[in-house]
Amino acid sequence: MFIEVVPSAKQIDDYKLEKCIAVVFDILRATTTIITALANGCRGVIPVLSVREAQEYLQKPQLISSKAGANNILLAGERGGENIALFQHGNSPLEYPTQTVRNKFLVLTTTNGTRAIRGSAGAARVLIGSLLNLQATAREIKAQNRDLVLVCAGSQDQYSLEDTLGAGLLIQELLPLQPHLSDLAFTALTLAQHCKPLKVFEVSQHGQKLLQLGRKDDLLHAARLNLYPLVAYLERQKIISSPQK
Amino acid sequence: MFIEVVPSAKQIDDYKLEKCIAVVFDILRATTTIITALANGCRGVIPVLSVREAQEYLQKPQLISSKAGANNILLAGERGGENIALFQHGNSPLEYPTQTVRNKFLVLTTTNGTRAIRGSAGAARVLIGSLLNLQATAREIKAQNRDLVLVCAGSQDQYSLEDTLGAGLLIQELLPLQPHLSDLAFTALTLAQHCKPLKVFEVSQHGQKLLQLGRKDDLLHAARLNLYPLVAYLERQKIISSPQK
Repeated sequence: MFIEVVPSAKQIDDYKLEKCIAVVFDILRATTTIITALANGCRGVIPVLSVREAQEYLQKPQLISSKAGANNILLAGERGGENIALFQHGNSPLEYPTQTVRNKFLVLTTTNGTRAIRGSAGAARVLIGSLLNLQATAREIKAQNRDLVLVCAGSQDQYSLEDTLGAGLLIQELLPLQPHLSDLAFTALTLAQHCKPLKVFEVSQHGQKLLQLGRKDDLLHAARLNLYPLVAYLERQKIISSPQK
Repeated sequence: MFIEVVPSAKQIDDYKLEKCIAVVFDILRATTTIITALANGCRGVIPVLSVREAQEYLQKPQLISSKAGANNILLAGERGGENIALFQHGNSPLEYPTQTVRNKFLVLTTTNGTRAIRGSAGAARVLIGSLLNLQATAREIKAQNRDLVLVCAGSQDQYSLEDTLGAGLLIQELLPLQPHLSDLAFTALTLAQHCKPLKVFEVSQHGQKLLQLGRKDDLLHAARLNLYPLVAYLERQKIISSPQK
């Protein structure tokens, strides 16, 4: 097994994903939010690229599912870490407790995360990664026999520390498979082996921005390793989950 | 002081260099070769982008210096790690002992390194980095008061482990200045603090390629920390050196 790491959503097209499993990481906060919502009973998350695309789903809920209607769709997202006017919800995982998302569909657009997910759609299989469901995701990968591309959403089209750490923590779980590592995969593993997640989040540029916005709780939540035994994957244009077998 | 790290030559244009010191790293092998040649008495290294540009300097040596003539110019370089037909020399630092380069000018073109140097020319000052002259370079930086951009040449337009390690080892020398670190700068420092250079070179993708080409000695040489007390900088289009004061 060869493991590659893509540094940011902008670079996805420079990598070959066709026969690989892609795992997308936008630890602060899109993929952490997606996993939290699914764990709390959300029926599916639809990653979209624009506010307009999100609004179209609200007008045509049948595009999501025959079970979706205007009354069980939530529009959510952020731009540059801040909420979007007219949308009910932002991109904090703490906005999605059971009473909010149970049996709902979440249509989500974020600066980097949803772009990374959509950009990975050419992979044989697309999983959603976070610290919250790391071991479950690793078990799913071990059950298959494919090369792996870990897609970091990145920050402002560049490398981001927290996403690379997420990739590294997953690689650490996969070491029993004796994978071959790309240069960035080796680096990610080194980060995972020597740095504590919360510390990394606090020094990362995006983490510092969230702290300035008063979002310390988001960082604490994103650092909760293996909270949910849940695998999340993209099926057609929707992210759904299955409990770990 | 803020320290940024550029992952590869291809990305230079995404970063602002104007008021900064840029330090370029192409550890395997261009910048290691440049430092070695200068330490062994080479009068100047001219980084060029193409074979044709190199040949033009041979025809018009006065473009380099009034002291340059066809008899004291060496054309050197590589493409994809291999020598260039018609050029006397390749890109191994071990090809440049004193008897070869003393009082000569070296016109050098390599896949990534010379591109990274030329791409950094917009910085307030451009230094050439390697493990061989790390402390000397750090002292030169400490004597000034500017933000720092560490430009990794990268490999195949992507992140490379050995260049990022080089950047990290330089950051380690600068920690007494309590610099603010970008996400990739923090990562580079983590690599430097926990990995041995030769080990990193051996696992890196470009290092493995050089090992396949029988260039183990190049890796050993590139890993020799602080062999030369020498600062190398770009002045107009020529890299020259000054001994550390």
